[in-house]
Amino acid sequence: MATTHQLTPPRLHHPSASASSAARVRATATLAHPLLLSRRVRLAAPDSRSPSLSQRHGRRGAMSVRSSLIDPDGGVLVELVALPDRVPALRAEAEALPRVRLAPVDLQWAHVLAEGWASPLRGFMREHEYLQSLHFNCVRLPDGGLVNMSLPIVLAIGDADKEQIGGKPDVALQGPDGGVVAILRRVEIYPHNKEERIARTFGTTAPGLPYVDEAIAPAGNWLIGGDLEVLEPIKYNDGLDHYRLSPRQLRNEFDKRGADAVFAFQLRNPVHNGHALLMNDTRRRLLEMGYKNPILLLHPLGGFTKADDVPLPVRMEQHSKVLEDGVLDPETTIVSIFPSPMHYAGPTEVQWHAKARINAGANFYIVGRDPAGMGHPTEKRDLYNPDHGKKVLSMAPGLEKLNILPFKVAAYDSVAKEMAFFDPSRSQDFLFISGTKMRTFAKNGENPPDGFMCPGGWKVLVDYYNSLQAEEATPVPV
Amino acid sequence: MATTHQLTPPRLHHPSASASSAARVRATATLAHPLLLSRRVRLAAPDSRSPSLSQRHGRRGAMSVRSSLIDPDGGVLVELVALPDRVPALRAEAEALPRVRLAPVDLQWAHVLAEGWASPLRGFMREHEYLQSLHFNCVRLPDGGLVNMSLPIVLAIGDADKEQIGGKPDVALQGPDGGVVAILRRVEIYPHNKEERIARTFGTTAPGLPYVDEAIAPAGNWLIGGDLEVLEPIKYNDGLDHYRLSPRQLRNEFDKRGADAVFAFQLRNPVHNGHALLMNDTRRRLLEMGYKNPILLLHPLGGFTKADDVPLPVRMEQHSKVLEDGVLDPETTIVSIFPSPMHYAGPTEVQWHAKARINAGANFYIVGRDPAGMGHPTEKRDLYNPDHGKKVLSMAPGLEKLNILPFKVAAYDSVAKEMAFFDPSRSQDFLFISGTKMRTFAKNGENPPDGFMCPGGWKVLVDYYNSLQAEEATPVPV
Repeated sequence: MATTHQLTPPRLHHPSASASSAARVRATATLAHPLLLSRRVRLAAPDSRSPSLSQRHGRRGAMSVRSSLIDPDGGVLVELVALPDRVPALRAEAEALPRVRLAPVDLQWAHVLAEGWASPLRGFMREHEYLQSLHFNCVRLPDGGLVNMSLPIVLAIGDADKEQIGGKPDVALQGPDGGVVAILRRVEIYPHNKEERIARTFGTTAPGLPYVDEAIAPAGNWLIGGDLEVLEPIKYNDGLDHYRLSPRQLRNEFDKRGADAVFAFQLRNPVHNGHALLMNDTRRRLLEMGYKNPILLLHPLGGFTKADDVPLPVRMEQHSKVLEDGVLDPETTIVSIFPSPMHYAGPTEVQWHAKARINAGANFYIVGRDPAGMGHPTEKRDLYNPDHGKKVLSMAPGLEKLNILPFKVAAYDSVAKEMAFFDPSRSQDFLFISGTKMRTFAKNGENPPDGFMCPGGWKVLVDYYNSLQAEEATPVPV
Repeated sequence: MATTHQLTPPRLHHPSASASSAARVRATATLAHPLLLSRRVRLAAPDSRSPSLSQRHGRRGAMSVRSSLIDPDGGVLVELVALPDRVPALRAEAEALPRVRLAPVDLQWAHVLAEGWASPLRGFMREHEYLQSLHFNCVRLPDGGLVNMSLPIVLAIGDADKEQIGGKPDVALQGPDGGVVAILRRVEIYPHNKEERIARTFGTTAPGLPYVDEAIAPAGNWLIGGDLEVLEPIKYNDGLDHYRLSPRQLRNEFDKRGADAVFAFQLRNPVHNGHALLMNDTRRRLLEMGYKNPILLLHPLGGFTKADDVPLPVRMEQHSKVLEDGVLDPETTIVSIFPSPMHYAGPTEVQWHAKARINAGANFYIVGRDPAGMGHPTEKRDLYNPDHGKKVLSMAPGLEKLNILPFKVAAYDSVAKEMAFFDPSRSQDFLFISGTKMRTFAKNGENPPDGFMCPGGWKVLVDYYNSLQAEEATPVPV
């Protein structure tokens, strides 16, 4: 059985209806914000080793370049942040509207929708979108085509909210701190069948699923869909907002660097040298295929994660060290935060992870073993078959245009004293260091084998676990 | 939201690649069997009110007619019954093969596959088909197109079977009585993740789902897929085999009658006059649209059903009376048994019910309230939102070519003293008689209101429930 798309030679993605020109149809306030990147990751000039896109298209000037990036789903990047001059009127309008308070995870989804990661969605799902997502993992475009949409992106409300809204068409959405962040228009309210949603999304209803406990079980019994209009770009003021590039900002950055291929690496863990080996090897393979300037999007997930995952600020610090230490090449790497919350829904969720990166311009997606997986919450086994993620991803409707790159297994080669692709002919030489093992090393202040992770990155983890232990050791005041 | 496909004017379905000519590519032993229909339902000659298909195509002779019926999924009706002259060699071959014993429900699925109801499937699903069915409710054709496939059609085996098979490519399948019924070739064995299969198929894992209790929970922990070759047409010798027309036999019959539209009515309950009103009204609407000879396929499900459903022989007797009593017109109706088992999987299963009828030549499908639904096994509510079935069906990938006809609500009009379409302006005049209420009437020997069901059909039900009570009253010998 062929479980993956084959690598295809370089090609332009419909330059006549290019993503960036299409995206310009709807300018938003995000454009007004300066493009801030990590202080540590320098933005490279268009790669001198390859002709720039403008040269290839026979034109000059970065802003007039026709992008060769993959089209967003539905052809146009859907951006839902109001133009700044509309904001006063929207605030005044919101005063008179029924209000719904967003939970922190809801705000993350509003962020995801506002920037177009979920293009062509124009807001929280109405029932016809929800049902298609739940049953088919894809939604139909007006032209009859399908785009992938594997996770329901929905907003739940309770009975009191529903009653307050009554038959009114528009609703103001308040952030967790009470400020109005958006207006949801032409709303549709329909039942939130939690059991069915959970069963179809996760393939289990066992108690203890982190996203269910956090975001579904405590939520209301109704879902409210509609067209979203966000007042201002959503910020978290956690010192990491400069890492949160929107799909448009990423596309602009890829264009500026003259990328002719973009390969995305989704992660929610520290980067060890096995990951780096894989990413560098992918770049090598893309160059061999004839691409001149493949750019890596190192794209850690920034929304809700489960309690025992390494927190986002620590991961970002660790990723910075990996680039500082030269394990990845800053010239051909963009580090940015993917604002989505994490479902831990395995094969269902990996489709979302891949689809969202198409919208940001990635045409290659690296998929690992057991993507978006976790242990079964009540049984001693993986919740998902670790191979299903890449199989499902490679067959998913609406993802045909994405090139899926299966993860090669890397392990610690105790002879070469470095991370290397596993060689079954000398399996005894290889040490597999799981995430759990890595965390145990860091917690106990032990060092992993030389060459497992760059020293700077490792120190970040050790410091984090030390701080945790210090916290645990501090007596709680009564 | 548009939840249904609109009725479209009559059109020929790709006559140049017609179903019946394509289907002739693979002739099977089913053709050798005489076409036996109900003794009571006379087969009509091609309808004299409309030109026959052969006339319209300017040719004579039923066998050379180019069919205007809808194409089977994948373009060709897949039939998997061996030609009679191959059978001795297959029996000899089977002697040397590892053997797997089919449960009664497995045999029903083998029947379904053998006759092409699940075209383009060529046997029990291999893992890539199973995963697509589970996640997307559709599978991809070699040309990249999608066909609907919402239920996993899989064969489970236990550890001992798996060990016995080892790496051997082919396996003999024995019927529940021990005789070899088929060979499964180029097998693939993969894990049977029951929890995930149940959750994704049914949208719940609550205990008490009839198909789960019957066919999934007791089954083995592995699934075995492969190409099926059935030795002889599968028969049940229950006096009803003559009702079990294959998709090819139905297509031939529709062609013979000169059908220019076929509308299918799936049911697992007795036919009351509300159903009949709907079916007759559908024919009227199709005639109004310009079709000359719409034929009704009254298509009761004949495989596994739950214990409190009316058994198949009783239902067939009841359906015969409905035609005898003239409630439906035998000239434009074909009564046949759909051999599939019942999952009671609501919106997921209704897609299967519709898709299978495409393969039999139906281009219109009548969908009711809560199709394939039932009560939640542990909560006091419907398991599925009663509207989801028709919504999901109308949006399902791979069913675009099927016209979905939503059920109009019929109820007993106590003024007109007949079943009539519900008129909300005089709702007090209407009596809703549920299946449960109907069974209660029949069990208690009470008569339903005049005009609810034809007297002959009603008597069949009363007799059945009387016989049940007599059985229950008979002391069991110790």
